[in-house]
Amino acid sequence: MREIAILGIGQTPIAEHWDKSLRALAGEAVFAAMQDAGREQADGIFVGSMLSGLLSHQENLGALIADWVGLRGTEAVKIEAACGSGAAALRAGLIAVASGAMDSALVVGVEKMTETVGSQTTAALATAADADWEAAQGLSFVAINALIMRRYLHEYGWKHTDFAPFSINAHANAVHNPNARLRDPITPHDYNQARMVSDPINLLDASPIGDGAAAILLVPAETLKRQGQQVIAIAGSASATDSIAVHDRRDPLWLSAAETSARKAYAQAGVGPAEIDVFELHDAFSIMAALSLEACGFAERGQGPRLGLEGQIGPKGKVPVATRGGLKARGHPVGATGVYQAVEVIQQLRGEAGATQVPDAKIGMAQNIGGSGATILTHIFRTE
Amino acid sequence: MREIAILGIGQTPIAEHWDKSLRALAGEAVFAAMQDAGREQADGIFVGSMLSGLLSHQENLGALIADWVGLRGTEAVKIEAACGSGAAALRAGLIAVASGAMDSALVVGVEKMTETVGSQTTAALATAADADWEAAQGLSFVAINALIMRRYLHEYGWKHTDFAPFSINAHANAVHNPNARLRDPITPHDYNQARMVSDPINLLDASPIGDGAAAILLVPAETLKRQGQQVIAIAGSASATDSIAVHDRRDPLWLSAAETSARKAYAQAGVGPAEIDVFELHDAFSIMAALSLEACGFAERGQGPRLGLEGQIGPKGKVPVATRGGLKARGHPVGATGVYQAVEVIQQLRGEAGATQVPDAKIGMAQNIGGSGATILTHIFRTE
Repeated sequence: MREIAILGIGQTPIAEHWDKSLRALAGEAVFAAMQDAGREQADGIFVGSMLSGLLSHQENLGALIADWVGLRGTEAVKIEAACGSGAAALRAGLIAVASGAMDSALVVGVEKMTETVGSQTTAALATAADADWEAAQGLSFVAINALIMRRYLHEYGWKHTDFAPFSINAHANAVHNPNARLRDPITPHDYNQARMVSDPINLLDASPIGDGAAAILLVPAETLKRQGQQVIAIAGSASATDSIAVHDRRDPLWLSAAETSARKAYAQAGVGPAEIDVFELHDAFSIMAALSLEACGFAERGQGPRLGLEGQIGPKGKVPVATRGGLKARGHPVGATGVYQAVEVIQQLRGEAGATQVPDAKIGMAQNIGGSGATILTHIFRTE
Repeated sequence: MREIAILGIGQTPIAEHWDKSLRALAGEAVFAAMQDAGREQADGIFVGSMLSGLLSHQENLGALIADWVGLRGTEAVKIEAACGSGAAALRAGLIAVASGAMDSALVVGVEKMTETVGSQTTAALATAADADWEAAQGLSFVAINALIMRRYLHEYGWKHTDFAPFSINAHANAVHNPNARLRDPITPHDYNQARMVSDPINLLDASPIGDGAAAILLVPAETLKRQGQQVIAIAGSASATDSIAVHDRRDPLWLSAAETSARKAYAQAGVGPAEIDVFELHDAFSIMAALSLEACGFAERGQGPRLGLEGQIGPKGKVPVATRGGLKARGHPVGATGVYQAVEVIQQLRGEAGATQVPDAKIGMAQNIGGSGATILTHIFRTE
């Protein structure tokens, strides 16, 4: 497979965009990425989205978006892997260009979640769980994560407040991200006093939903090298699965699909966790941030909260995470999130991350989770 | 890209499988394909499905099916392009193996449509149309096709009864297909007297929905050639889009995405329509069969019904179509249909099509349509 580089990135603010349709949101991100790339065309379009059918009565997003952005006729398809849809679309686009089947791919993540009533959105999100064995028992998605967090506190002896740094760091970084959903800093007191959602997950453990779109244009790295341009390449890309139902796993506190996909991506890139300068992880709930750090080798098993408590997860820390706000404060428009994460890593590698820039960032990683650990994709980006 | 061959195929009967879940249906097809291939493993799983979220409250089918078929951990993803999802999954699997990212891919099409009430299923199918500009006006999917057919009759002067051969041929062939949904032969009288669904489309112009799954295992052709095995290769694969909304097309009676994807697939395979021995087309409605034949070069513009009237679409005819029953009589489990079509072409090339075997079939084509022409994929298979 030939090496693939990122030529352009774009994103919309994450908000309640009641005045913008799915296609309008996707279009904004695509036009921004095209402008950034200095191009107006792509050979293929890969759309990551989870809920367009359930919440906007619209499937076939590939054709919809191709037409809207002026690329009617162009090959286009939708990729779905629950909340991991964005990174799954990125991987599909990457493979398509790497294969030689096409010379450029536009990857778009888009989701619209705030125009429906809450119970409908909650029911739609539960389609990421096992319909027969989890959702049918009345488990919502946050409830599943609450059971995991409760078990984690029990097994490893942490207190709920030990997870505060994840949320505090995310909010602190989002203050400086104009596209973030929640741009207010929070204090440890705020975290401890936040309203309970599903014990032990409170409002500041949980990421907010939102409407938004992000886009990336991929081309062969060789194209840029020939023109003497700076190359940010995808050095590693891998995807792995686990059972959807948490009760069916050997260890409900271990993200085996995160471990597998990270191990493969590290091997492809020839690096390990020590070489990763910035890590955009999938902090849909604070417990997921801890579990990702462990499965990817940044923390020992059961020690996920430690890096936060030691002050090492900020932009100047040892393992910077959620540098643009993460899912927790940038927001979590589910099927678009994986593309936002990639866009943010690229901003860091370009040195465009402003007040939350990680000094001298050369290698970045993004990890996107579909379901409560069922489908996990890891991508490593490198400045060359 | 390296050449890809089909190692195994499998399918379930298309029926009202109220006793089988999504994963059980998919599993049946996968196990059949694995047994056919003599393998128990695949490097990646590509699931084509359109309605699992809307009708079964289940997304993330990649992980769900990987786990169920004993391949927990394996990379897996769902691909969606409305009724073109099956062929879109096939193309994604093909590209993944061709790229070298993996050495085998399991392609699964699965849909479960009969357990919900009719109005819910009709609403779900309308997500393949433009939600803002078609479905919002009250147009169902069959109504959109009825408008196209009405216009076709008006423009080209055909009578409704001229479309009878498509339906009669499909039903005649399905009699001999144990997996077909409707296995009763029909007469011209039956066709002309059938109940109206959406004028001018009557019950025998429209394909029946159903529950079912089909699967294909892809490997590099080189692997089989080294072992001296017969190779059925994918000689052409292409996808193209058009506007979703029919009113937005330059010509509502021309499937430009069928033309584009067929032209690309022909060029890749180095053949033209004259070399195609069998053509599994997307006869969701009889008008679509006519339009496909025209766009792919088998008939002149506006002359789609002629081949049928001249008796040339049967297994012994010049352009055999719907040889196992087509969407019309084999059935149309929407997201699975594209995989069924490919499986049936492979049965023909293997000489396993029984009473409806096309004599000496060496090159076959399958064309799968998402929406009323919005996303169209064409695949050409060849015995080598």
